[in-house]
Amino acid sequence: MINEINQIMDQAYDAFLSYQNISGKDKKKFLCTIADEIEALGEELLTTASEETNLPTARFAGERARTCGQLRAFGDLVVEGSWVNAVIDKASPDRKPMPKPDMRKMSIALGPILVFGASNFPLAYSTAGGDTASALAAGCSVIVKGHPAHPKTSALVTSAIKKAIAICGVHPHVFQHVEGESFEMGKILTQHPLTAGVGFTGSLSGGRAIFDYAQQRATPIPVFSEMGSTNPVILLKDALRHDAKEYAKAFAGSITIGVGQFCTNPGIMLGIKSSALNHFTSLLALELSLTPAYKMLHQGIHKNYTQALSNVLYNHDVETIYHAHAEGELIASPVLARVTGDAFLKNVNLHHEIFGPFSLIVVCENKDQLVEIYKNLKGQLTTTIIGTHHDLETNQDILNIAKNVAGRIVFNFVPTGVEVGNATVHGGPYPAATDARFTSVGMDAIQRWVRPVCYQDCPDYLLPDELKNINPLGILRKIDGKFTRDA
Amino acid sequence: MINEINQIMDQAYDAFLSYQNISGKDKKKFLCTIADEIEALGEELLTTASEETNLPTARFAGERARTCGQLRAFGDLVVEGSWVNAVIDKASPDRKPMPKPDMRKMSIALGPILVFGASNFPLAYSTAGGDTASALAAGCSVIVKGHPAHPKTSALVTSAIKKAIAICGVHPHVFQHVEGESFEMGKILTQHPLTAGVGFTGSLSGGRAIFDYAQQRATPIPVFSEMGSTNPVILLKDALRHDAKEYAKAFAGSITIGVGQFCTNPGIMLGIKSSALNHFTSLLALELSLTPAYKMLHQGIHKNYTQALSNVLYNHDVETIYHAHAEGELIASPVLARVTGDAFLKNVNLHHEIFGPFSLIVVCENKDQLVEIYKNLKGQLTTTIIGTHHDLETNQDILNIAKNVAGRIVFNFVPTGVEVGNATVHGGPYPAATDARFTSVGMDAIQRWVRPVCYQDCPDYLLPDELKNINPLGILRKIDGKFTRDA
Repeated sequence: MINEINQIMDQAYDAFLSYQNISGKDKKKFLCTIADEIEALGEELLTTASEETNLPTARFAGERARTCGQLRAFGDLVVEGSWVNAVIDKASPDRKPMPKPDMRKMSIALGPILVFGASNFPLAYSTAGGDTASALAAGCSVIVKGHPAHPKTSALVTSAIKKAIAICGVHPHVFQHVEGESFEMGKILTQHPLTAGVGFTGSLSGGRAIFDYAQQRATPIPVFSEMGSTNPVILLKDALRHDAKEYAKAFAGSITIGVGQFCTNPGIMLGIKSSALNHFTSLLALELSLTPAYKMLHQGIHKNYTQALSNVLYNHDVETIYHAHAEGELIASPVLARVTGDAFLKNVNLHHEIFGPFSLIVVCENKDQLVEIYKNLKGQLTTTIIGTHHDLETNQDILNIAKNVAGRIVFNFVPTGVEVGNATVHGGPYPAATDARFTSVGMDAIQRWVRPVCYQDCPDYLLPDELKNINPLGILRKIDGKFTRDA
Repeated sequence: MINEINQIMDQAYDAFLSYQNISGKDKKKFLCTIADEIEALGEELLTTASEETNLPTARFAGERARTCGQLRAFGDLVVEGSWVNAVIDKASPDRKPMPKPDMRKMSIALGPILVFGASNFPLAYSTAGGDTASALAAGCSVIVKGHPAHPKTSALVTSAIKKAIAICGVHPHVFQHVEGESFEMGKILTQHPLTAGVGFTGSLSGGRAIFDYAQQRATPIPVFSEMGSTNPVILLKDALRHDAKEYAKAFAGSITIGVGQFCTNPGIMLGIKSSALNHFTSLLALELSLTPAYKMLHQGIHKNYTQALSNVLYNHDVETIYHAHAEGELIASPVLARVTGDAFLKNVNLHHEIFGPFSLIVVCENKDQLVEIYKNLKGQLTTTIIGTHHDLETNQDILNIAKNVAGRIVFNFVPTGVEVGNATVHGGPYPAATDARFTSVGMDAIQRWVRPVCYQDCPDYLLPDELKNINPLGILRKIDGKFTRDA
């Protein structure tokens, strides 16, 4: 195995040295051709993904659209070109006591990036998903360690990328796919001297292990592990009083979408003791009871879900509000449970993510208790605030807590479903992610895979186009502190 | 000690919660008042720093100007306001199949930042240096672990900051100074649950230890350690033929400035075997012989220098070209040595930084060997290319290597002396720094201490000013993919 990995990484490094210098236009052509070739796989991709995941084909039509959309969006980003954060400080030869040099900087690709496939999104987060798309857009070569839960889907997507490589004439090893069940292989790839960065989406234990391997290296490298989150929802009373039914319906959908296998699943809902909260809880249970039970992705996830569930429900402080009596292989029962704020504060086991169609309503004694609980939650991908104008105006302290807890704050909507945009933040304080300063979804995901390099007094003709005096690419640059597209 | 540290960190966290929300204007006032109060310390600061470091007072007049200049520059940056990277993706309620939400993101402060004082720059990199200035500008509170080599200087600067805190009425614990020789204290501070990030400038062993402590935490945090570098210089033949004397003079100055105690000191110089290289070597030795020997900063650095020197010079492949016979307590002899490319390739011990007035000329057999050596060097803060127009035009492959080796590429000038600007990169691939994606000097140093937060469908009146529809601060924002200062 080691020889094989050495060869793969040597190839990935050679590919990087060539690919890092190609133009934004050529990168866009490559990314868009990958999208075209994925679409050209047609129905076979959807049925294969469905067979390997127990999720419906309609879901994969959506996920494919998202995957191809983000590949093309990164293509547009790199053609537009301003993503390199070009900055120019002009020389001042007469400055005293020392002349001021000409300094110009821009972002360049880090090197070969290792991407771990994610079982819950075989298209959008795996082979040609957001990590791969952003790394290729940055000018990095990519090695994907495929997830063993969907090998056929990975192979299909890999075939599409290989076709795009041939069509576009980029270095043949710009993308490589590695299979293997073994955890050891992930470790060796992470610790290989030529690996320059890692993208991971999955469990806290997996993501932390990869992070630790990377930090133990002689040469540490950046790891962006996007991991667990309970995505706390704050339910304010006026909203519950007025729109309980509507929110119950929306949250039942959000808790069960993808059989609860979304990292933004609303796993904890905080409200203050009231008849409105009770009413909402009953309505939510009712809505959940109307939702059929489905199969989970694979044995491992199903086992973890049932085990975590029984641990929580076994707790005598936890009241089971709704528990679907579903049976059958891999079938996951949607579950709603309730606990008092006092009990929640005392038992940190209740603060952990349960990956599946589960949510826990925390009934706080009063506002102070809600604030105390909210403030002390671990880092989160998202947090949601449900409140009317009046609720929000009178609870501005909650907002201040929200921003220190999560990467994304959602108002009056469910947290599941992450837009792929310029303003997207999919990350957050640990353990939501290993580095809250970056996002794994959206256009700024590219910033994980680049570093700045500064040219001091470099002759103009030797500078990369992004930094040349005439600004041939017409990108936005910061020149002597002012942003401009001028030459 | 633990109780004391717990109290300090609790105070730092309280201060953060208050200080993170103050306006850019108020932060500027605070940063500029710190600069004013440092200047108000007058001559006492310069003489104290000189006494504690064995460096001349003139050097501290310069370092003070740099320190105050960077505090004020960060003040300007946060008043201008665009540094928060505001991005807005507007809603599209009619989008199919799902309405598109309104998404807005900006950077916010991480939390309390721990800064380790650096012995070689008691003003610019320590108490109120670049790490502190950038963290305060970001909206973080700061805890400085003072360097035991300059306690009185640190105390003076701390007194200036405390005055500024009182004058500006910011939270009293926005800045705290901790003294202590013990390494254990640094570890406890780094691993304290409330510490949100660390800035370190110093040795590879120290910086790596801090990094490792941080990664072992239950909640890992960002560490920017700026560490060792040999700052390789590429000497191309045409330049040596035409300007040997001028460069010899410049590099003798660069090797010995601050008694060689600069992290950008040119420790390795690579050239191809030629009479021009021999001539340059002789001229450099001559220039070094005209430079007096001075005292180093402290016992530890002096001991490391003399030991590392004797290890290198003891090697029978290494030829001593110049070795000043200087004697006296803490006195460092400027030394120039030479080695063949073959020997250098075989002996990785020669690739390490020697912190002091030392440089090693590597005589490469030919261009291929120079390329091989250059490509395989570890990560560097800087690399310098000395070449005429003809040299540079015919050696563009060297440039391609340079950008993958270092954070800053200097053309035809010495690497010592780092500009504090918008385009500054002071960092680089490991072991130059622990994360090549950031810089510790220059305006973008602030980006180490912030993370993005996204507001989804947030009512306008609840948004921070940076993200409000009318753009009350007039900052540059990316709206639907286009950069604008418009509302």
